Amino acid sequence: MRKELNQLREEMARRGLHACLIPTADFHGSEYVHDHFQFRRYVSGFTGSAGTLVVTPQEAGLWTDGRYFLQAEQQLAGSGITLYRSGMPGTERIPQFLERTMPDRGRLGVDGRTISYKMGRHLENLLEHKKISLAYQEDLADAVWAGRPPILPQKIWELPVSCAGQGREEKLAVLREKIQESGANSHLITTLDDIAWLFNLRGGDIPQNPVFFSYCLLTPEETSLFVYGEALSPELRRALEEDGIRIRPYAAITEALGDLDESCRLLLDTSQVSYSLKKAIPKEVRRVFGPNPSTLLKSIKNPTEIAGLREANRKDGVAMVRFLCWLEETVGKEPVTEMSAAEYLDSCRRSQENFLDLSFDTIAGYGPHGAIVHYEATPETDCPLQPEGFLLVDSGGHYLEGTTDITRTIPLGLLTPEMKTRYTQVLQCMLHLAAARFPHGCRGENLDILARLPLWEEGLDFRHGTGHGVGFLLNVHEGPNRFHWNQHGEKSGCVLEPGMVTTDEPGYYEDGKFGIRIENDLLCVEGPQTSYGSFLAFEPLTLCPISTAAVEPSLLTQRDKDLLNQYHQRVWEELSGLLPEKEKAWLHHATRPI
Amino acid sequence: MRKELNQLREEMARRGLHACLIPTADFHGSEYVHDHFQFRRYVSGFTGSAGTLVVTPQEAGLWTDGRYFLQAEQQLAGSGITLYRSGMPGTERIPQFLERTMPDRGRLGVDGRTISYKMGRHLENLLEHKKISLAYQEDLADAVWAGRPPILPQKIWELPVSCAGQGREEKLAVLREKIQESGANSHLITTLDDIAWLFNLRGGDIPQNPVFFSYCLLTPEETSLFVYGEALSPELRRALEEDGIRIRPYAAITEALGDLDESCRLLLDTSQVSYSLKKAIPKEVRRVFGPNPSTLLKSIKNPTEIAGLREANRKDGVAMVRFLCWLEETVGKEPVTEMSAAEYLDSCRRSQENFLDLSFDTIAGYGPHGAIVHYEATPETDCPLQPEGFLLVDSGGHYLEGTTDITRTIPLGLLTPEMKTRYTQVLQCMLHLAAARFPHGCRGENLDILARLPLWEEGLDFRHGTGHGVGFLLNVHEGPNRFHWNQHGEKSGCVLEPGMVTTDEPGYYEDGKFGIRIENDLLCVEGPQTSYGSFLAFEPLTLCPISTAAVEPSLLTQRDKDLLNQYHQRVWEELSGLLPEKEKAWLHHATRPI
Repeated sequence: MRKELNQLREEMARRGLHACLIPTADFHGSEYVHDHFQFRRYVSGFTGSAGTLVVTPQEAGLWTDGRYFLQAEQQLAGSGITLYRSGMPGTERIPQFLERTMPDRGRLGVDGRTISYKMGRHLENLLEHKKISLAYQEDLADAVWAGRPPILPQKIWELPVSCAGQGREEKLAVLREKIQESGANSHLITTLDDIAWLFNLRGGDIPQNPVFFSYCLLTPEETSLFVYGEALSPELRRALEEDGIRIRPYAAITEALGDLDESCRLLLDTSQVSYSLKKAIPKEVRRVFGPNPSTLLKSIKNPTEIAGLREANRKDGVAMVRFLCWLEETVGKEPVTEMSAAEYLDSCRRSQENFLDLSFDTIAGYGPHGAIVHYEATPETDCPLQPEGFLLVDSGGHYLEGTTDITRTIPLGLLTPEMKTRYTQVLQCMLHLAAARFPHGCRGENLDILARLPLWEEGLDFRHGTGHGVGFLLNVHEGPNRFHWNQHGEKSGCVLEPGMVTTDEPGYYEDGKFGIRIENDLLCVEGPQTSYGSFLAFEPLTLCPISTAAVEPSLLTQRDKDLLNQYHQRVWEELSGLLPEKEKAWLHHATRPI
Repeated sequence: MRKELNQLREEMARRGLHACLIPTADFHGSEYVHDHFQFRRYVSGFTGSAGTLVVTPQEAGLWTDGRYFLQAEQQLAGSGITLYRSGMPGTERIPQFLERTMPDRGRLGVDGRTISYKMGRHLENLLEHKKISLAYQEDLADAVWAGRPPILPQKIWELPVSCAGQGREEKLAVLREKIQESGANSHLITTLDDIAWLFNLRGGDIPQNPVFFSYCLLTPEETSLFVYGEALSPELRRALEEDGIRIRPYAAITEALGDLDESCRLLLDTSQVSYSLKKAIPKEVRRVFGPNPSTLLKSIKNPTEIAGLREANRKDGVAMVRFLCWLEETVGKEPVTEMSAAEYLDSCRRSQENFLDLSFDTIAGYGPHGAIVHYEATPETDCPLQPEGFLLVDSGGHYLEGTTDITRTIPLGLLTPEMKTRYTQVLQCMLHLAAARFPHGCRGENLDILARLPLWEEGLDFRHGTGHGVGFLLNVHEGPNRFHWNQHGEKSGCVLEPGMVTTDEPGYYEDGKFGIRIENDLLCVEGPQTSYGSFLAFEPLTLCPISTAAVEPSLLTQRDKDLLNQYHQRVWEELSGLLPEKEKAWLHHATRPI
C-alpha cells in the first residue's frame, strides 16, 4: 500500500470526504500537464500521461486507456490501487464506481479548477439521485503533497507582428465582433494557446508548448490579462499596457469574475472553463453558452503565418533529408539505436535557423515498437537498428516561422511482402485525402473515408484519428479542425476553411511486428469558384520524400503514381537548392518518379 | 385579390388573430399531404407540394423552395400574395416577417395539429420578446373552406406475417423494450408509416403511401390504436383485439392523452408529435424526450422483408427491361412523349404479379425537363421524344413483396461529348458509393463523398441528397438512414446497420439542357468480422441495366469497368430467366461487359 494513498485518505477523513477524484489536468484543460499538477501521478505512482484516480476509504481505482494498460499494471502492483481499463467491455466506469461506493448524501472531493464546468455538471447529474454533492473547493494536493513541484513562471516574450501577421489590437477587435455576434458583450478565455495567440505572446511554462499560465477576461470596458507578474519584463508589461491591456495577477481571476455585474453578458465555453471559475461568476451575470471564438480564429492561419509555415517546413524538410540520408548510410555499418537516431534527428532540427524547440518528443520506434502509437524510447526499451524492417519516426519542431509535425516510416532493409502491401495502402490513404477536392461546407468527417478506404477494403483500419489541427508556434495539437469519422455531436470537427492546417496521418499497426504511419501537414487552400460553391483543396506543407523502396508498385493505380510523383517533384523543387551536394544527390534519387 | 384570402381575413378578424400561418401538412407530419389538408393550396391557389402561407390583415406571403419559384410566381400573380423565395439570399424569413408585421402581444393563429411541438416551441421562442402567443386551437380551414374535401377512410388491410416477417406481438415486445431503455414506460406514436409497420397493417388514405390515418399510444397497461372505425372490417378489428390491442376512434387520442396520470413516463419525439397533442398531455405526466424507436426498428429490414425486396426488384427489373427495350425500338419510329412513355412503363409494372401501386408518380423528363429534379409531365409540358439526348426516368412500385425506387437516364440517340462525360462521372459516383466497404459505426455523412468526388473534382455537384431510406411496402422515402454530407446535428443520418435499404442516386443537371441521375437501391449487408470491427458493404437490390452507350470509356478506370461489369453480370443472372426471348436478347446486349 502506497503511503501517499494513506496520507490522502487521512486528509479525506479530516475533511469529511467520502471519495475524491483526481484527474490529470491543470486549470486550463491543457493536453500536456505541468509537473505541479501531476497529483494523480504522485498519489498513484503511475507515470502515464493520461489517467484518473478515484479514492474512497475502502477502494482506489485508476482509469486509463489502452496505451497504458501494461505500464499501469506494472506500476500499480502492490499500490492498493485497482487498474480500470477504460473502453474495455465490462469495465466499471467512474460514475458507476462512485454510485456503488459512495453513501447517499456523500461528499465527492475534487479540485474544481481541474475539471471543466461541463464535466462537473455531468458528474452532478449522474450522482443527483444519491444526492451526492461536489466538494469542489478541496485542494487536497496542496495539503498532502510534500515536495510538490512549484510553478516557476518562465519569461513571456512577444511574437513580432512580422511573424504573427496580425497585431493584437486587430485580433481583439475581430474577437469582440464575434462576441457581439454570439449575443454577449464579455468573454472569459482560459485556454492557454488561445490567449497566447490573441496577444501575440509566447511562453515556456509547459515543455514544447510555448504557452504561459494565464487567463483573459474581456468586458465592454477593458481587456484584462491575468499572468504571473514575474513572467513579464517591465518593457513587455509597458507595451501591453500601452495597447490598452490591463495586466493583473494570475490568481486575481476569481475576484475579477466576482466583480462582474448585471450589465455583463458573458460568453462561456463550458467545455473549456473550469467548474470553479464558472461557480465564481455572480448569479446576476447573464451567461451566453457557446464556443470560444478565438479557437476558430486561431485555426485559420493568415497569409504571414502561411508564408512562415512554408518556410518552417522547408527547414524541417532539410533537417529530415539530412537525417534520412545519414540513416541510410549508417544503419548496418555503425551502431545506431532508436534513441541515438532520434538524437541525430533532433540535432539536425536544432541546427536550423530560428529553431526554438521540438514540438513534441521525437518518436522513433523500430520494428514492433513502431506499432506502439505513442512510443517513446527509454534507456530500458532502446534497441539497435538493424538493416531490415521499418523505423517509424514521428517528430516536429517549433521555428519562429511556425510549427511542424511529420511522420515517415523508413525501410532499413529487407521487408516482408505484407510490410510492403500495408505500406503501399497507408501511402494510398495519405495521398487520397491530400488530393481531395471539395466544396466549402465539408467537415473532416465527410473526408476521412478517403484516408481509410484502401485499408477498409481489406477489413483493416487504424485506431486513431486521421489528423489534427497544428498550431502556429503553439501547441502541435489544436482544434477545432480535424479528420476523423466516428465521433459526432460536439466532438465533430468544424467546417474546413482556407488557411487551416490539419495533419493527414493514416497508419497501420501489427502488434508485436511493425508499425506504419505517413504524415503530411495539409494547408486548406481555395480552389475554383463555380456555380456549385467555393471549392477547396489541400497544399502539402510537409516537404520530405516518402520512401518508394517500401512501395509495391503493382498495387498503385496510375493516379496514385501521379500523385506521389507530383509530391516528390514539389519536394525536389523546394529543397534541392537548400542542400549540400551529398544530400542533394540523395534527394534526387529519393524523389525520382516511379 | 383572391376571395379565399378575403374570407380568411374576415375569419381572422372575427377571432381576433393578428396573423395566421398555414403550413402544408396533415396531423402526422406526412411527406405527402391528403387533399383534406391542402388549405394552403385552397387559400393561395399555388398547387406545388411544398409551401407555407402567412397572412396578416395587410400582407400575405407564400414561402416555397427553388423547385417551385416559377410555378408559384405564375399561380400567385394577382392573388394579393407575395412570393418569398426560401433559401435565396436576402429573402425575409417567416419569423422575421411575423416580427415585423405583428403587434406586441399579438395572437398568431395556427392549427397546432399541423405543426410539430418542436416547430411550435421554436416559433414561440423567436416571438417571445414581442410576447406574441400561439393561438393553436384555431381551425380556420373548417370555418373558411367551403367544399373542403372530406377524409374518406380507406379500408385497412393486414399484411400477413409471411410477408412482414415478424408478428405484431413480437414487434410490440421489442418496441416496449426500447421504450424501457429510454427511461420511459409509455409512448405516443403519430407517424403513419411507423404505426403501419408496427401493427402489420396497410391502408390507402394517402395515394401511393399505403398508410392510414391513426395514432398509437402504448402505456404499461395497454396498446391502443386510434383509427377511423369505418376503416376496419369487423374481422380485422376482432383479430387486433384478440392480439390485445384496444381499438379506439381516431379522434379520441386527445382524450386518451388527457387521461394519463403521474404513473406515466411518456416517451415523445418532439419532431414528430404535434404541438396540439403535446399540449393535451397533463402536467403531471413525466416526459422523456427522445427519438421514436419504431422509426429505427422499421428501417432495419428482417430476412423475410429482404427476400421480398429482392423478389420485388426482380419484378421491377423485368418491367424496366420491357420498357427500355420498347423505348429503344419505338422512339424515332412511332410517336412517343414523356407521358406516353411513363404510361407504358407504368403498364409494364402493373402487369407484374402482386403489384399494388406505383410508389410515386413516374418522372419522365426529356431533354431540359430532365434537369428539373421533381419534374412531372403534364399535358401542358408533355413533349415528344426525339432520337437524341437523354430521357431521365425515376419510378418505382409497391409490390406485396416490397417497394422499389429506380432511376435510369436513357440515351435516345446522339449525345454531346459533355453529356457523355457527365453521364460517366455520375455513373462513377453511383458505382463508388455502392462498392464501399466500411466498419460498423459509419453514417451516411461519412460515405457520401464517394458519390460526389468524381463531380467535385471538376467543380461540379448535384443539389440534392444522395440517398434516402426506402420503406417496405410503405413510404418510398423514410428515415433515419440517408446519404448526405452537409447537414449536421439532428438532421445527421443514423449509423448504417445491416438490413437498411438506402437509395444511391447521384445526378448532374444542366439547367435548360439536360439532366442525369442514376439510382440503385442498396441493401446494407454484413461483411467480414475482423479485429478492427464488423465490416459492412452494400448489395444492389435494383436490377436493371445501365446504358453503356452514354459512357465515355476512357474516363473509367479498370476498377470502374469491373464494378459496372459485375453489376451487369448480376442483372443478367437475375433477370434473364424471367424474360421472353426478345427482351432476353436485348438484355444480353445491354449487359455485355465493356
